[in-house]
Amino acid sequence: MTIDAHRIWLDVEKIRQESPLIHNITNYVVMNLTANALLSIGASPVMAHAEEEVADMVKIASALVINIGTLSEKWVNAMQRAIRQAKALDKPIILDPVGAGATPYRTETTRHLLEEAPPTILRGNASEIRAIVTIDTKTKGVDSITTPEAALEAARYLSQQYDCVVCISGKTDWVVQGNQLIKISNGHPLMPRVTGLGCTATALCGAFSAVSESAFQATVGAMATLGIAGELAAQNANGPASFQMHLLDALYNLKETDFTERLKLEIVS
Amino acid sequence: MTIDAHRIWLDVEKIRQESPLIHNITNYVVMNLTANALLSIGASPVMAHAEEEVADMVKIASALVINIGTLSEKWVNAMQRAIRQAKALDKPIILDPVGAGATPYRTETTRHLLEEAPPTILRGNASEIRAIVTIDTKTKGVDSITTPEAALEAARYLSQQYDCVVCISGKTDWVVQGNQLIKISNGHPLMPRVTGLGCTATALCGAFSAVSESAFQATVGAMATLGIAGELAAQNANGPASFQMHLLDALYNLKETDFTERLKLEIVS
Amino acid sequence: MTIDAHRIWLDVEKIRQESPLIHNITNYVVMNLTANALLSIGASPVMAHAEEEVADMVKIASALVINIGTLSEKWVNAMQRAIRQAKALDKPIILDPVGAGATPYRTETTRHLLEEAPPTILRGNASEIRAIVTIDTKTKGVDSITTPEAALEAARYLSQQYDCVVCISGKTDWVVQGNQLIKISNGHPLMPRVTGLGCTATALCGAFSAVSESAFQATVGAMATLGIAGELAAQNANGPASFQMHLLDALYNLKETDFTERLKLEIVS
Repeated sequence: MTIDAHRIWLDVEKIRQESPLIHNITNYVVMNLTANALLSIGASPVMAHAEEEVADMVKIASALVINIGTLSEKWVNAMQRAIRQAKALDKPIILDPVGAGATPYRTETTRHLLEEAPPTILRGNASEIRAIVTIDTKTKGVDSITTPEAALEAARYLSQQYDCVVCISGKTDWVVQGNQLIKISNGHPLMPRVTGLGCTATALCGAFSAVSESAFQATVGAMATLGIAGELAAQNANGPASFQMHLLDALYNLKETDFTERLKLEIVS
Repeated sequence: MTIDAHRIWLDVEKIRQESPLIHNITNYVVMNLTANALLSIGASPVMAHAEEEVADMVKIASALVINIGTLSEKWVNAMQRAIRQAKALDKPIILDPVGAGATPYRTETTRHLLEEAPPTILRGNASEIRAIVTIDTKTKGVDSITTPEAALEAARYLSQQYDCVVCISGKTDWVVQGNQLIKISNGHPLMPRVTGLGCTATALCGAFSAVSESAFQATVGAMATLGIAGELAAQNANGPASFQMHLLDALYNLKETDFTERLKLEIVS
Repeated sequence: MTIDAHRIWLDVEKIRQESPLIHNITNYVVMNLTANALLSIGASPVMAHAEEEVADMVKIASALVINIGTLSEKWVNAMQRAIRQAKALDKPIILDPVGAGATPYRTETTRHLLEEAPPTILRGNASEIRAIVTIDTKTKGVDSITTPEAALEAARYLSQQYDCVVCISGKTDWVVQGNQLIKISNGHPLMPRVTGLGCTATALCGAFSAVSESAFQATVGAMATLGIAGELAAQNANGPASFQMHLLDALYNLKETDFTERLKLEIVS
């Protein structure tokens, strides 16, 4: 079945009805925003990073979101343990390799986590996705300087290598799985001026993957939802901070017509 | 003397005048919101979690707030040390067992902290309070699936066992101490859609306990204040994020008539 | 050349054009606000605190911002390593001794960091700056109870001792380097009611130091910019939380006339 506005909307409704528990091991910068975005869309967030409890938390969660934005040794150990547990229990694993390519530590940690168990969904910006495959890309901190197009080859490779969905987010979001490719062009120029909206997209992938028919549809739904909420937010924003507030409010207030009227989705292959 | 709107208001005025220093060892998700809520009500927040300094920080603080929302070994050690110091110096200890029952690690840590020294105030949702007493409750992450009524027995037990005030927060807040029971019905349905408002309630218990005549009155005052601020915030909110902003503004702008006109307090026993 | 509104504005424009990467090792409470403030002014923030990667991150960054607001052993180790790397590569180091004087651990850590390498800019409130020099000041948590005037002697001493710019922020900001002294009187009374605006000032010093002709001009520019944004924010604020939102929006929307019409700068010596 084709992914369209109505099918994405049905997933939003399912999130609101089922309120799936999403276990996040994420970075300090975005924890509050991530939790609030998940609550706004209707999911139930939990943050837990102690090695003593991550396996227990994965057990009661519907999806595991791993984000390496502010990593350190103990957190990486906990991520590995949580990933192993999610794999054993066949729960969706969503991986955000924040800053891969910026430092060897981040690139190598990303590779270790990928080896621990293939993620269900891998979401990053163009330079991060490229950096996982090659080390000859330049990354400027956690922001991208590689075009999405240039990263597409890397995404296809990673999707095949790990049998997972790969999403390259940017002005246009690309969602890749095997030979399938969908482009989503929703969003607003203020989005990169708010910290953690990429991480928010990753967390939403977690919420959608908990209810959606496929990981591919979940990723498309999450990216479209965030982009459309961004467009709605921009109508009332005076700058990045009011934009962020309106975006969370928009996630909470989304209705089906927001998708039918605004969704810019192109099925490339 | 009976706790009423006027007495709660006098405590708000005292917080504004004395600006008590509240030492928080809390979770990463809510630290910013907690600090801003304490500043908005007129208190002075400080966050410190290093074993090297918690005893010194407790010494200059007027209350200690412990919240296990994102715990790990070193943080638990620091919490224990801080609690011992607060006990030695006879300062109020407020404990928020976030997610007790969700994982054994959280339930057991809560019990260890209770054994270290009885808290002055223990505040959680219904499933957390029940989980401390029994392990046969189901907790869904940090959200409650036990009714407040079902947790009342556990609250009474804990209040007697540790000679402390126990607060079960939810749509209706229950404040228990020995045979005393007060119900507060202020608040708004958007409150559980904002992360960390339970933690905010706990931090406000810290601020009120630094100035109030009794821990029981402090707890009632804190819960009523947050609920009333929530009602005021809802008047201008379009969703959870604007609601949060207006709630902090409301805490800052509270006046006596907000309490006299809005307080829904029932002295049950 | 004299520092005036036009020269500060040119630095703002440079930040927007060059979008310098600012590496922050800062406290949990303010990370999100710091990142958003840097994005709003046009810089590119990154947070990284693992010993494994701080040296690599400093290498690609334009400035290093160190803030001890929620310190612990591993973080202090990472701060020291990052400072050594920044010194070796001759990159600006901005140090914020949050809570120095509140506990011996903070005061001593500040001194250790100063010994590791002199910072380019040291920014704190009056009691923090005094506490670094003497231990006979009283600090109330992270808030100041020493007047800026009383701390000026300490600032002059530290500026000479470490050959750095020292900024004492408060109702009036004092920027000291050797015999130079500039007073900035922009700002708004709501600013101390929002957590982390001192830390925001420090982070902005990082952004300005990445583009400015001198560290002295960078510090003056950062403090003036934040103060003016605060004045603009207050025009639409109803309390501390809406104030914070408008402040970030104001940083994003700043134009030259905001500086020419509002800058209150006095060159004392």
